[in-house]
Parts: sequence; structure tokens; C-alpha cells
Amino acid sequence: MNRYLQVDPWCIIEDGFHPAKQLASESIFSIGNGHVGQRANFEEFYSGETMLGSYVAGIYFPERAESGNWKNGYSDSNDLIINAPNWTAISVRLNDDRLDLGSWDVQNFKRVLNMREGFLERSFEAVSFKGVRIQVSVKRFLSMAETEVGAISYSVKSINYEGRISFLPLIDGDVRNQYTNYNELFWNVLQTKTEQDVSHLWAQTRRMDFHICEALTYVLYKNNEQLNVNPTKIEKEKVAGFSVGCDVRMGDSVCLNKYVAIINSLNHPREELTERACNLAKATKKKGWNKLFEEHTAIWAEKWLQSDVIIDSDMAAQQAIRFNIFQLNQTYNGNDARLNISPKGFTGEKSAGATRWDTEAVCIPFYLCTSAPNVAKNLLLYRYRHLPKAIQNAEKLGFLNGAALFPVSTFNGDESHNEWELTFEEIHRNGIIVYAIYNYICYTDDQHYLAEYGLKVLIAIARFWSQRVNISFEKKKYVILGVTGPNTYENNVNNNWFTNFIAQWSLQYTIDSIEKVKKMNFRAFEDLSQELHFSNEELFQWKDIIENMYLPENKSIGIFLQQDGFLDKALTKAFEIAESELPINQHWTWDRILRSSLIKQADVVQGLYFFEEKFNIETIKNNFEFYEPFTVHESSLSPGIHSIVASAIGNKQKAYELYLRTSRLDLDDYNNEVSDGLHITSMAGAWLTIVQGFGGMRVKNDKLFFHPQIPDRWNAFAFNVLFRGNLLNIRVEKKRTIIQNIKGDTIVLVVNEQLYEILPESQREIKS
Amino acid sequence: MNRYLQVDPWCIIEDGFHPAKQLASESIFSIGNGHVGQRANFEEFYSGETMLGSYVAGIYFPERAESGNWKNGYSDSNDLIINAPNWTAISVRLNDDRLDLGSWDVQNFKRVLNMREGFLERSFEAVSFKGVRIQVSVKRFLSMAETEVGAISYSVKSINYEGRISFLPLIDGDVRNQYTNYNELFWNVLQTKTEQDVSHLWAQTRRMDFHICEALTYVLYKNNEQLNVNPTKIEKEKVAGFSVGCDVRMGDSVCLNKYVAIINSLNHPREELTERACNLAKATKKKGWNKLFEEHTAIWAEKWLQSDVIIDSDMAAQQAIRFNIFQLNQTYNGNDARLNISPKGFTGEKSAGATRWDTEAVCIPFYLCTSAPNVAKNLLLYRYRHLPKAIQNAEKLGFLNGAALFPVSTFNGDESHNEWELTFEEIHRNGIIVYAIYNYICYTDDQHYLAEYGLKVLIAIARFWSQRVNISFEKKKYVILGVTGPNTYENNVNNNWFTNFIAQWSLQYTIDSIEKVKKMNFRAFEDLSQELHFSNEELFQWKDIIENMYLPENKSIGIFLQQDGFLDKALTKAFEIAESELPINQHWTWDRILRSSLIKQADVVQGLYFFEEKFNIETIKNNFEFYEPFTVHESSLSPGIHSIVASAIGNKQKAYELYLRTSRLDLDDYNNEVSDGLHITSMAGAWLTIVQGFGGMRVKNDKLFFHPQIPDRWNAFAFNVLFRGNLLNIRVEKKRTIIQNIKGDTIVLVVNEQLYEILPESQREIKS
Repeated sequence: MNRYLQVDPWCIIEDGFHPAKQLASESIFSIGNGHVGQRANFEEFYSGETMLGSYVAGIYFPERAESGNWKNGYSDSNDLIINAPNWTAISVRLNDDRLDLGSWDVQNFKRVLNMREGFLERSFEAVSFKGVRIQVSVKRFLSMAETEVGAISYSVKSINYEGRISFLPLIDGDVRNQYTNYNELFWNVLQTKTEQDVSHLWAQTRRMDFHICEALTYVLYKNNEQLNVNPTKIEKEKVAGFSVGCDVRMGDSVCLNKYVAIINSLNHPREELTERACNLAKATKKKGWNKLFEEHTAIWAEKWLQSDVIIDSDMAAQQAIRFNIFQLNQTYNGNDARLNISPKGFTGEKSAGATRWDTEAVCIPFYLCTSAPNVAKNLLLYRYRHLPKAIQNAEKLGFLNGAALFPVSTFNGDESHNEWELTFEEIHRNGIIVYAIYNYICYTDDQHYLAEYGLKVLIAIARFWSQRVNISFEKKKYVILGVTGPNTYENNVNNNWFTNFIAQWSLQYTIDSIEKVKKMNFRAFEDLSQELHFSNEELFQWKDIIENMYLPENKSIGIFLQQDGFLDKALTKAFEIAESELPINQHWTWDRILRSSLIKQADVVQGLYFFEEKFNIETIKNNFEFYEPFTVHESSLSPGIHSIVASAIGNKQKAYELYLRTSRLDLDDYNNEVSDGLHITSMAGAWLTIVQGFGGMRVKNDKLFFHPQIPDRWNAFAFNVLFRGNLLNIRVEKKRTIIQNIKGDTIVLVVNEQLYEILPESQREIKS
Repeated sequence: MNRYLQVDPWCIIEDGFHPAKQLASESIFSIGNGHVGQRANFEEFYSGETMLGSYVAGIYFPERAESGNWKNGYSDSNDLIINAPNWTAISVRLNDDRLDLGSWDVQNFKRVLNMREGFLERSFEAVSFKGVRIQVSVKRFLSMAETEVGAISYSVKSINYEGRISFLPLIDGDVRNQYTNYNELFWNVLQTKTEQDVSHLWAQTRRMDFHICEALTYVLYKNNEQLNVNPTKIEKEKVAGFSVGCDVRMGDSVCLNKYVAIINSLNHPREELTERACNLAKATKKKGWNKLFEEHTAIWAEKWLQSDVIIDSDMAAQQAIRFNIFQLNQTYNGNDARLNISPKGFTGEKSAGATRWDTEAVCIPFYLCTSAPNVAKNLLLYRYRHLPKAIQNAEKLGFLNGAALFPVSTFNGDESHNEWELTFEEIHRNGIIVYAIYNYICYTDDQHYLAEYGLKVLIAIARFWSQRVNISFEKKKYVILGVTGPNTYENNVNNNWFTNFIAQWSLQYTIDSIEKVKKMNFRAFEDLSQELHFSNEELFQWKDIIENMYLPENKSIGIFLQQDGFLDKALTKAFEIAESELPINQHWTWDRILRSSLIKQADVVQGLYFFEEKFNIETIKNNFEFYEPFTVHESSLSPGIHSIVASAIGNKQKAYELYLRTSRLDLDDYNNEVSDGLHITSMAGAWLTIVQGFGGMRVKNDKLFFHPQIPDRWNAFAFNVLFRGNLLNIRVEKKRTIIQNIKGDTIVLVVNEQLYEILPESQREIKS
């Protein structure tokens, strides 16, 4: 743990300049609005270590895959999120000297991420080699209201300087990624053009033909009065913008407001991009800073109303949970079914910015509870739209008859990750996509979604499972061979319990859903049946598989077996490993990890979490107590899931210990890797830890259930949930729980197995 | 199967030009002498498809490894064999026209690889666009006597041409490999220099600092008379040589003999390379073609005397077995313990030219029987010299106390292959290195080798096994988890029977060897013990492992289990797979291969082959009959081993069927891949198929045993073996076997369980 940031309930604060932490700060202080994401790179030139990160949702690049150890069926390309032309650049010059925090003396540096209002602020004094001293303050945000707009206010006050101060607000198209296979160039800059009042850069990705246009306008102020000076136009091959400035004396302040429109061909016709970008930049300038900012903070106020969590008497925890909620809302706004959430969101390049099963496992539950249903629905539709490609993908692997295997990592539905043990074998992702549909319908009761979209996905996945199993010659049961379960510290195992279970469950849920849809609209089902060439023999086969699925267990210990042969291991527990060898993925070779008993993340426990209702508490307890001690939690998703299950079995101590590991993972940089980007998806897990873990929230039979427990260190905690038109606030204190029906009709819910009715705009106090 | 070559007992013949087969022919018609290997690239310019292949033994390049899916412990580089400056180039010009079989009309083309005398010959007529017609014949060889010398005789006869014929004999340093990760440049050309009578090119590899110098001299003849004309000197940045020619009329012949010295810094001081190369080229020219050729063929005569195999009445088989013996002798001459044999020898780039366990499994047995013992010994010393690196390699994987893991693929002892399932898990290679020591000592009785070199390797490997096992929590036995056995169509399995067995056997052989060495020289053993910090507790632990090793089996079927869980598969046999899906490694994705019951190559059967004596014939038969039907033989080593075991259990039909698959694998290009290079190591397997399979040869208790069986299609077959000073010829006919003691003292041997004594220079006829 490495805490250099201040603790505050609503802000992340870096007090004093930490150049050695700059990469980490760039991740942590990221801003975004679902359309654009921006690492906290400095606006001005910076000669120190930095990783540019300026990403536009949905814009990716199919980089040529590396060819070593090639396997049939691999994808030719590894898609990755790429740096868009940098919209933040504002170079600052004092006569001939360029401001650079890498070489100037920096004092009173302060960087603040204001989460309540969603902006990034920075102030400092800088002294040049020549002794020139200035005071700088910068504020920027990406508008949540106008998601194609970013704004920066850059202010310089002269302490002892007399002379010219110039700002160069730029759009810089000369950008690359730091991590690439072949250091390919991503962009063709098609046009740079600077007119009197607006400058733009228009670029096209060298593959996929995505177009983007960024246009900038600015206003210059001196001592708070607008200056109308003629700028120098900058119109280079890959850079567009202005150079503008004025002379100052000691005490004078100059401030440049930069407004940037960032629009792309996913949302606008190519031929109109430049015009629309320029118009939007000009309109934004006209609207002005204050109005733009007000609209922005109004949206944040709404978001906080829906999703805030309050933790009394533990400010570090309070800050952490808000940070998680804040980053999640910055990453995905749910308005576009072509977009999704990558494990690192828009805060780094490392996981390539592609979608993984994290979305279905933890993000959908978060958005279900904190946003309108269309947000989670769009995340489901993302997969639905990829169904034809998932069917193609399965065909490549030898499957027939419309079976689908969704990709392990994707932007557009194509598999984008080449690692056979995951690409071909981490197949439980298919099951988790089914689980997400189940979860969505359970939460929203949107039966129409099931009939219209969900069922096609369910049937395609059921077909996959039915072909992926085989009857064991020895066991005379259905087995699933050669898989990698959620614990990716095992590869190519046989009969991973979680995979076998979720396969069996998926088949049953599909059969149930077919029955349901048949009842709702028989005619529509008949049509679907015909379209999919669906036959009743398939149903019989699925039922046979469900009845005869092999689920490995050891009855004498009373556990499910993570996979066949787990008990052949030397059963070494995580605490027995020397600190110096942790995390094992940085210290051990892969074979050693694989044959050890150490577990990366919830595997059997993931199944117990998803399907809690199917097991009695004793079974869950036995398995948790058996497996948790082997678990090194080297996936950021792991501690959260374990914490929830620990709460469920009443192990408050463990639940709290694991909660701590998840909530401040990035702020305290436990794994010394936050410089690569934030763990965005696992932030949803941290939220679930509070709501499903300590709050004990479940949805069963169209009702909300709570089972509140409060960690000893806390006086109270509270969270909001949206459920079928109701907005509730649940406040858990040491001796009581208060549930407030903020919005919506009368609601009936269950707290500690007891039914309560809460009238509109009223609350109930429940003693514990 | 795709036979475009003529069948002949001593030659490989391409009659008529097959440009579409040029890549295949380049592999098949390769020449070599253990020091240099050369694909059958044309000397003259060729615009058609070609893959340059001009390799010098021991010269490799550590190419930067690809970084995708990186694992701790991977090597930074993938070493690969590289094209040395091309010594064969002779460009031919008729006035301004350059001879090019890719664009000229080619007639009466014939290419002959003469295996008896070890040279490559080519003749053809070519007609230019202008109608100019010439007759060309070319002969080349790499001297077996002077292994640093290559010679080419290039002759052109004018049919209808009048004008100038020029030859440009060159050393071309502008060479690359076709298969590389990053298309790196391998060579710095340090010097090109052309004097009146010799031209040379001196180059250095851009890593490792290998130096090579190639020098050329030539003689020009017109109508068989030497011409002394002034050449034009060529001294370009990366090319050195001459341009020389004369005017011809119809019917005139011009011939250029090119002599090249190819020497390198592995064998000579850097500072003397150019001088030595030039001197050697000049001396060779002085020696002249005939003398050089005589010395060369004398060595081949000796090789054939020792290693020829005769197959009566089956010329395709006869040609094939000679081709195999010929290529093996071209690849490795056994004089240098720094060199070894890569799966494709010097005939292509694909397997990177590095050493794998093929050497110990099949090449050493071949060389043991057909060469002086120093040849096999040098192959063992190669590994002995790498022991310190093998210990470092094991340390990287977390092993302690001098445990060694030899690399899966190497030039210099460093692991050069990054694929976790092999690099870290295909650990049986360690056992096969032990087996090779056992085999060598068994064959040669060289106990001195055991004491001096072998034991250190044995102890280091025993230490590896003793740390690699663990006690199964469930089985209470020693298990070996997470391995890839010989059948690499399974990865990361538990308790591969072959691996567990060879580990157990290695430990026992090490204990036995310690006892033996102790008895031979107790003092020396004490010294070694101290040097290695060897303790008796280690012995106790090894014995415990030997006694309690888990060896998976299924008693009801009466088989050893290839690995835990093998009988969970759907047991599909190879013949059930559609032709269009074979070979499966070209048609199926990796997961499908892994979970299928199909087996790439001998696995359990490999163990039955190595350790035949430990099992009764019933056990061998049961296992062979169980596993062989699942085996797709997609490793070139597989059919040979299966054929030998089939012979051992008396399944003549199967033995012959599998022999056919191995012996003409490359000549008939079964797998449509010979263009990548020949399967050199598996050629040793083909030889073993005859000698150990049909001949039934074994060595037990210091004696040779035979158990001859003749395939129905053959009238007779005969082979030679060298055994402890005796050179024997074994001729197997339908009704008798004749054993001739060609060289050496009286020998006692066993044929069909009966003892025979054969006096020097006499023979015994044994009725069958």
C-alpha cells in the first residue's frame, strides 16, 4: 500500500508534486463522460514520464496479431483502444521559454479531482531557470450533458515576470500508443485547418475507416477581461490550433478557455464531420463556461442522487466508494448499445480497452441498481448484436447448427485475444452472458426483452453447451473437458465445477425461458423456432445433459471440486507464501502457478455467489472456508465476490477485510500497477460488496430482499437503489436500518426475512 | 502422397522441371557435410519461388522474442538458424540477358542427387526470349573431407548462340531468413575484397558476434581448356566476387569451377579468418576438382560401408532408406560437441535449427550403431556442456540445490522456445537425456563417461524430479502435475504415465549409477559428492519417490493411462476422422485437438519402446492395441516408434504399414510440407524401424540380440551395425538370416533367443 493522496469525502487530492507518481496520478485523476476518456496528462508540455491517454468510445484499431506459436482459429488482429488526437494540449510560453513541470521548479502543487461535480483542477507555482515565477491554475472537464465537448480553463498569473505570455491551444494528431505489437501508426490526418475563430483536425484510422474530427475555439482573458487579439494560426501536417497571447506585468493574470468538440463517424455522417465539429465548438464558446459547467454538474447531481453511498466515520472508505461510483459513471452512460466497459475503462491501454465478461458479472448488476433499465439493457444488446459473429466464431471451432461462443475480448463481436487457453477454453463466459440475461429479467421483469432478444442468445449458447459436452467413457456422465475456469491460474482442466454447473444451469434456464415465451406468444415462438431451425429433439438432448451432468465433488470434505484432480495438489495456502513472492504472477513461472493450489480469483466461490439460492448455507460455508485460504486474489474482481459471500455466511470479519482490499485497490495502488490504468470493472464489484454484501440485497420473486450487517468500524452506511420505478435509500446503522422510499409507488420488500410495505416518500425504520 | 521423383536405388531424380515443386525440391536435394548445409537453390538467378538456405553449423541468431502473452521465465530471444552469406551464387549472362529458369523456356531438365558419392547434379536446356538456346550442366558438393570447402562446376554449351558468356561467381552477404519475428537483419558485412585470384566476404552477426569469412577462387574453361582472362572484380557493400567470361560460337562449351572456403570464428581466431579463408580457397583451386572430389567420395564410401541398408525387391523402400541414411550423415559428422542435430537439420528454417529431444530419442541410437562411439559421445557431451545453463534454467523455475531442466529447444544451452506448455511443462525431455546416457553406456560400456560426465547430469536431473513431484493430498502418492507428455496434443495434464515412469526410472538409474561409480572409484565419487553437496538424505528421498510414485492405469482394460482423465474422453479413433480434416493440426482449433482422444505421437507407446524389458509382452500388446488406433502420427517420429513396437509384439502387418509412413515421408511429401525442410531426426527413426523393428536388434547385458522378421513384400533386407569394435552385416531373408562379422574379433550374439559365436571375417547362417 502506497498512500500519497489525501483522504477527503468528495475529492481525490494530490498535495505537492509527485513526479515519480505521475503515471499513477494520470490514471487516478482521469476524467470521462462515456464518450471521451482522458488520463490526467498535463495540458502544457511535460518532459517527465507520462503516458498519453485520450480515448474516444468505440474507436479502436485492429492491430496485426503477433505470430508466435500460432494456432488455427486465432484472430489475425488484436483490437486495441487507441489514442485519439490529443484535445487537451495547451503549450505555454513566456517569451522564448516553454513551461515544463519536468524541468522547472514546482511549488505548492495541488491536483484535485472533484467527484461531486466531475472536474479536474490543478494549481501550482513554477519557477523557470531564469527565475521567472508564475502561478498557474487549470480546470477541465468533459461535459456529461454535451458528451462531445471538453473544456479547459488555463490561467497564468505572473508573480515576477514581465513580458509576453503565449498560449498554444492545439489539437495534436501526432499520437501513438505506448503498448503495441508492431508500433503501427493508427491515424491518417486528413485535414488540419485553422480559421479566424475555430481550428480543426480531421483524421481517419488507417484500418476500419473510423473518422474523427476535433475542433477548438477559445477565449482569452487578461485580468478577467476578454481580449480580442489576433492569433497566429497553426496548421501543420498533424497539428492544428492557435498561438495567442499578450504582454503582462507582475500581478497580471491571463486565462485561456479552450472549448473542444470531439465528434466521430460512429455518430455523424463522415461528410459533415468537420462542419459539425466546428459548429459545435463555436456554439460551445457562445454558450460560455458557466452555462456549460452548470449543465454538466446538474447531471452529476442526478447521478449521485441515484447512486451515492455514504459511509459514516470512515473517510477513507467513503472516499473510495465514491471514487468507484464516479469512475463507473464516467466510463459508461448507457446510451449506446455499440459501447461497453473494458476492465480499465478509458484510463489506460494495457487491457486493450476491449470488453470481457466483467461486464456481465459485475457491471450489469451495478448499473441495474443505479441507473434506468435501458443502461443495463444496452449492455445486453451489445452482446445480442454480436450474436452472428459469436455463431461464426463457434463455427471456426467446429461447432454446428447455430451454436455460439462469444469472444473472450472484443470491440465489435470479433474475438480479439489470441491465447488458446482463454480464447478457446475460457468458455464459461458464455454462461455468464446467460446469467446476465437472467439477472436483468429478474431485476426488471422485462419479459419483452427475453422474447425479442434474449431467447435467441440463450438458444445459441445452449446449442454450444450441448455440443461442447461429451459422455465420459469411464464416468458415463456428461463431462466438459479442456477448459479454463474463472481461476485462470489453471488452464485446460477437465470438469471445472463452475463451468459444468453454469452450463447445466444455462440449459435449464433456456428450457424455462422457451416455456415462458411459448406461453406469452406461441405464434411468435413458432416463428422464432422456424427461423432458428429449432427442434424438440434439441430439448430432449438438453434435458438429458442437465440430468446427467457430472459435477465434481468430494463428499468427505463436503466441497465441490474446482476441477478434476484438484486434490492431487500439495495444498499450500496463500498465507504460507513469502511476501517476497507475491503477487505470484510477477514472481513465479506459469507452470508453478498452474500446479500450485493457489487460486487467482473466485471460481467455485463465483458459482456460489451467482447461484446462492441453489445451495444451503452449510455447503456455501464449507466451500468458502476450503477455497478462500488458497486464494491470492490476484484478479481485482476476486476480493469483492469473496466479501459478498463472506457476508452471506455471516463471516463479518472476513467480509470487511476483503472489502478493504477491493475498495481502495487503485487509490492505494495495492499491486503497484495503477499507472497502467484503473480497475474500472472491479469498481462495480466494490459497490456490490456494500450493497449485496453488507446490505445483503437480493432480488427474488420480483421483490427486493435485504439482510443488513454493518462492519464494526463503521457507524452507519447508506446506499441508493433503483428498482422498478422506485428510488430507495437504505441506511444501515448499528442498531437499525432505515429504508426510505424517495421516489415511486408503495413498495413491498423483505428485510431480514420480514415483509415491509413502504409508502411513497416515506420511510421505515427496522430494528436489528 | 505426391510422387514426382523417380525411383532409383542410389539417386533421387527429378526428370523434367517442376517449378511448382521447387521449394520441395530445394529441401529434398539438399547437400551438406556437417559443417555447412545447403538447400538446392539454383546457382544462377531465379525469379521463381525459392527459399534460400545456406546454413553454417553452430551459427545462430538470438532474435527478439515476440511479446504477446508473455510469461515470467520466458527467454528474451528465440534463437534461430540463419542464412549465411550465399556461397553458391553464379549469375550467368549471355551478352545482356541473364539466365533465369523462372522466365526462360526450360527443356530436358534433370536434377540428380547422387547419394553414393554425395553430390548434386543438374542439367537442362534453356531458351531465352530471343531464341538463344544453351545447354547447362551443374555439379556441386560440400566436401566431406575438407568440411570448410564447397565446390561447383557450372558448364554452359551454346547450341545456337554466338556472343559473350559471362559468369559472375559471387559471395552474397545480402541475405535474410524467410521466417522471422521482426524481419531483423542478421549480418554486418565487415569487408568485401576482391584480388586478382581470390575474393572474399567477411561478416559478423549483429548479435553473438559470430564471424564468418567466405572466400572464392575459380577456374574458367573453354572447350575443356583453361582460359586465363582478366576478370572484372566485384566488390560491393554486401557482395564480393568476379565477373568473367569469353566469346563463344555455336557448339562451344564454357565451364566455370568455383571453389569456396567457408570458415568461421567457432573454429578459427577472428583476426585470421580472412587470411585462412583466402588461403584455403587458393589451396583448393590448386588441389583441383578431381582430387577434391576423390577425397570426398572416399569418405562417403566409408560411411556407406558402415551404415548402408539393403532392401531387396522394393526399390522405393531401398531408395528411401538410403535417402534417410544419406541425409543423417550430411547433417552431423560427430566431430564437434558444440554441434547437434535439429529436427530439420540444415534443410530449412521452420524449426529454427535448434536441438530438441529427438537427438536423444532417435539420433543417438542411429549414430551408436553406424559410427565410432565418439559421435554419440559428442552428442552427450553437448548436453553435459549445457548443464550449468540447465541448472540456471531450473532456478528460474523455482528449483533449488543444483536441479537441472534442460531446454526444450536450444543452440547454446539457453532455452530458446517460449510456449509455456512446452518450455515449462514438456519435462520428460530431462528423462530422455538420462535414457540417452543409459543407452550409450549400455551400447558402448564406456563406464568412464558415466563417472566423468554422465553422473553429474544424472544427479542434477534426479534433483529436478525430486522437487517436481508432490505428494497428492488425495492419493497419498507422489504425483507429477501440470506436464505435457510426448503427445503434445495434450497440454498441462496430470500424471502423464510416460513422464511419471521415466522420472521414476531416472531416479533408479541415478541411484544405480552412483553405486557403480562408487565401486569403480570411491575417492573420485567422494570428491564429486562434495562438489555437488550431495547427501545421503537425497538418496533416501529418491527411494521414497521411486517406491511411491503414482502410475495411472486402468486394470480392467489392462492399460496404462496416458494421463489422469484420459478415459473421460469420447474415444474417437483416427480412422473415424474424415480425410478432409487430416492432419488435424491443420484443420482443428487447439481446444478441439486437446480434448479429443486423438494422439499425435507415441506417448505410452514411447515408454513401452524405451523400457520394453520392464513389461511383459501382454502388457505391451494391450497398450499398443488400445492406443495405436487413436494415434494420428502427426509427428514424424511417431510411425517409426510404433512400427518397432508392432514388430516386437509380432504385428508384422502394422509394422510394415507404419514403416511405409516413415521411410518415404519426405520423398513422397505425405504432409505436404517438405518445402519447409526435411524431417532429419525422424530419418533416424526410419533406420531404427528396420534395425530394431524388422531386425529386432537389442543390446542386453553387453550382447547384441536379434529377432529378425521380414515384411512379406520383401525378399531380403540387410543392414550393418558397429558394436564395440565389430562391424557386422545382418542379412535377413525369407528363410534364413546371415550374420557376417566383417571387422573385429569373434563375437557372441543372440538370434531368436539362441547364442551364436561368429569368428572374425566369417559368417553364420541361421535358419528361421
